[in-house]
Amino acid sequence: MIEMVAFDGDDTLWHNETIFTVTQEQFRTLMQSFVAPDVIEERLVATEMKNLKLFGYGIKGFVLSMIETAIELSNERVTAHEIQEIIDAGRAMLQHPVELLPGVAEAVAEVSEHHRVMLITKGDLLDQESKLARSGLAERFSAVEIVSEKNPATYQRILRRLDIAPQRFVMVGNSLRSDVVPALDIGAFGVHIPYHTTWIAERVEDEAAVRRRPGFHHLDSASELPALLGRLDSSIESSS
Amino acid sequence: MIEMVAFDGDDTLWHNETIFTVTQEQFRTLMQSFVAPDVIEERLVATEMKNLKLFGYGIKGFVLSMIETAIELSNERVTAHEIQEIIDAGRAMLQHPVELLPGVAEAVAEVSEHHRVMLITKGDLLDQESKLARSGLAERFSAVEIVSEKNPATYQRILRRLDIAPQRFVMVGNSLRSDVVPALDIGAFGVHIPYHTTWIAERVEDEAAVRRRPGFHHLDSASELPALLGRLDSSIESSS
Repeated sequence: MIEMVAFDGDDTLWHNETIFTVTQEQFRTLMQSFVAPDVIEERLVATEMKNLKLFGYGIKGFVLSMIETAIELSNERVTAHEIQEIIDAGRAMLQHPVELLPGVAEAVAEVSEHHRVMLITKGDLLDQESKLARSGLAERFSAVEIVSEKNPATYQRILRRLDIAPQRFVMVGNSLRSDVVPALDIGAFGVHIPYHTTWIAERVEDEAAVRRRPGFHHLDSASELPALLGRLDSSIESSS
Repeated sequence: MIEMVAFDGDDTLWHNETIFTVTQEQFRTLMQSFVAPDVIEERLVATEMKNLKLFGYGIKGFVLSMIETAIELSNERVTAHEIQEIIDAGRAMLQHPVELLPGVAEAVAEVSEHHRVMLITKGDLLDQESKLARSGLAERFSAVEIVSEKNPATYQRILRRLDIAPQRFVMVGNSLRSDVVPALDIGAFGVHIPYHTTWIAERVEDEAAVRRRPGFHHLDSASELPALLGRLDSSIESSS
């Protein structure tokens, strides 16, 4: 039997990238008096990628990257008032209501009847805890891990701590790079439920190669997860 | 016997508040063309306290609070160049070398020979992980918890997960509010090693009352910890 089903948070359980997209649209509007629209997004992404190693994932680092991009693209002509608007946009993101994806509440409830479930997410610590609390899903999870990076070592550390074999572990998420590939790398199951848009830092070079790997499963929606877990449980039982 | 000795990070294992103090000094210098020095610190603290609930602890939130304070105190006259200076100061804080407090390396090494030791710290997730990695102490710790708030529920959750009784747990830190009081509240030992300065958000109203509580111990330096643990182990043994 599968011993633990772990869910990613952002864009797997609840909407996240769409909130960033709305803020980026506001940022483009703010910056278009200084520079051409296509340059804005390119520079913002470049600043984000440069800062990721020091700032980590999450909204606070994103806000700092927007401010730095605004200063650079405006040749220091952006006003204090406009920078306050950027910070206010970040504050709105942090306070944005948590909107569960379709079928998630039911799927997590059903899965948790037969399996232990947990959350493995990255981003700002307090923001992720706050979203979990507001999601209404917190009591379903027997464990919660908010991590700075999702790589094979991260998953190995979590499984070791919980004393779970990778062959009995399922990671469910929208990111091939953070949720699926590192799970497959350690010999666990990786279930990909794509979100309609993927942040550039979460993309992988060869998606088709990932899809061919043993342990990979694709679902269109969380609603299909209980049935998949039933099949995985049966295949483990019949092979043991 | 004591089963777990937990250390706070900032201002217990390594210098932290002094790094904030240096940056606040730079901030005062930057702002003194706009407003009187005594107002600067007062407004910065007020902005920090207002933002703490949304931004949480750590350098990124502190930088955003400095920027907001600069915009407010300058009546939006602070320049983009000056705001970039504030962000650069934050970047310097994140990259600041980790400087262990005197006697810490030896004390942690000695304690870890006889007891399991762990780190319980708050702040930005990536920043705290980075500091731990650079501290040279990481391999001493059997567990690491980076938390958004240190209250009795936080400690209870950690002890439950590690299956440790509070009577066998020692929390060591510089903050009465975050390290000592919540540990005493759950029936554990709280060992206070004061740092020469305490951030306003970490202060308690009645220090003397805390010092009188059962389980409270005061040390002048981490060097005194192994001897204290020896006494605590003996007293547990003789009472059981």
